[in-house]
Amino acid sequence: MSLLSQLMSSFQILPGVGPKSAQRICFNLLQKNKTKALELADILKQACEKIGECNRCRTLTENELCRICLSDKRNAEQLCIVESPADLMQIEQSTDFSGTYFVLHGNLSPLDGVGPAELGFPNLVDLLAKEPINEVIIATSSTLEGQTTAQFIAQMCNQTDIECSVLARGVPLGGELEYVDSSTIAHAFGSREKI
Amino acid sequence: MSLLSQLMSSFQILPGVGPKSAQRICFNLLQKNKTKALELADILKQACEKIGECNRCRTLTENELCRICLSDKRNAEQLCIVESPADLMQIEQSTDFSGTYFVLHGNLSPLDGVGPAELGFPNLVDLLAKEPINEVIIATSSTLEGQTTAQFIAQMCNQTDIECSVLARGVPLGGELEYVDSSTIAHAFGSREKI
Repeated sequence: MSLLSQLMSSFQILPGVGPKSAQRICFNLLQKNKTKALELADILKQACEKIGECNRCRTLTENELCRICLSDKRNAEQLCIVESPADLMQIEQSTDFSGTYFVLHGNLSPLDGVGPAELGFPNLVDLLAKEPINEVIIATSSTLEGQTTAQFIAQMCNQTDIECSVLARGVPLGGELEYVDSSTIAHAFGSREKI
Repeated sequence: MSLLSQLMSSFQILPGVGPKSAQRICFNLLQKNKTKALELADILKQACEKIGECNRCRTLTENELCRICLSDKRNAEQLCIVESPADLMQIEQSTDFSGTYFVLHGNLSPLDGVGPAELGFPNLVDLLAKEPINEVIIATSSTLEGQTTAQFIAQMCNQTDIECSVLARGVPLGGELEYVDSSTIAHAFGSREKI
């Protein structure tokens, strides 16, 4: 197999990239962007070798502790629990939350062999015991698995005197009712807010 | 800047990849596909260092001559002229053309400083003189630049006794007339074929 074909099939490991886009990417890089492509190859190699999980919050970082866990400007009393580093980044970009995080890397799913240990619950318990945390915000997805995981964490917190909350659920901002799914509308209708 | 942010901005050199997809790609590779990502980094580096242009037809290859130019099963009398290696691949996949190719790497565009020399015309003239070519098929795009380039090549061929043709233009197969642009319809109407 020629190097070009190897490169094309290798690019297909990227999410959302099929044979046609892989071909387009290869030609673009090799014809117009060789310097930057070499840079990408180098950074990708370094990233694969050096990036691992933060020892405290389990997000991705090339150091022992991530930028947020190292910072002394974060509120040590609030902890936000998320499913993935991408969700962490999303919350950092969208909110002014100043506490710290804990990344589960998934949701409870006993059938797939994902139990509390796989999600780092031992570390979480440890962290809740050692640190001066008094509020936990559970930001798992609003799916069945996400909610089950949230319930599990909430029960754990309720045994201590740590306050526990989940993200509000309802009609998305800017969402036209006509296009919002019926279970969301039913929930939003039941949990209507005083205006 | 952290290695993760560097990787995210580096992935944005890929065509069609913005900040959000770059983020998705990074997390996917680092969390689930590290081995394959390392492989990609390695192949990309090799490809950038080794892949250059074929000495005869100017397509991309890691050798002196590409697979097609090296093959003794190709018809040496037919030459197809294309704009890019991607177009070459498209014709190889879609037709049973058995001749050889010549890649222009663009179209004539004097305002952008792309003249005959940049498109490899000296090599092309050489090739037409030395090889037993008696038919040239010009497969440039059906755009203004592509057509100008085709005209230029046709004039060159008409000074010799090499037969010269361009791809047929008309309504695409499976195209519903309602959605075909009006200049294509006008052309197809004018060049209607006997049935």
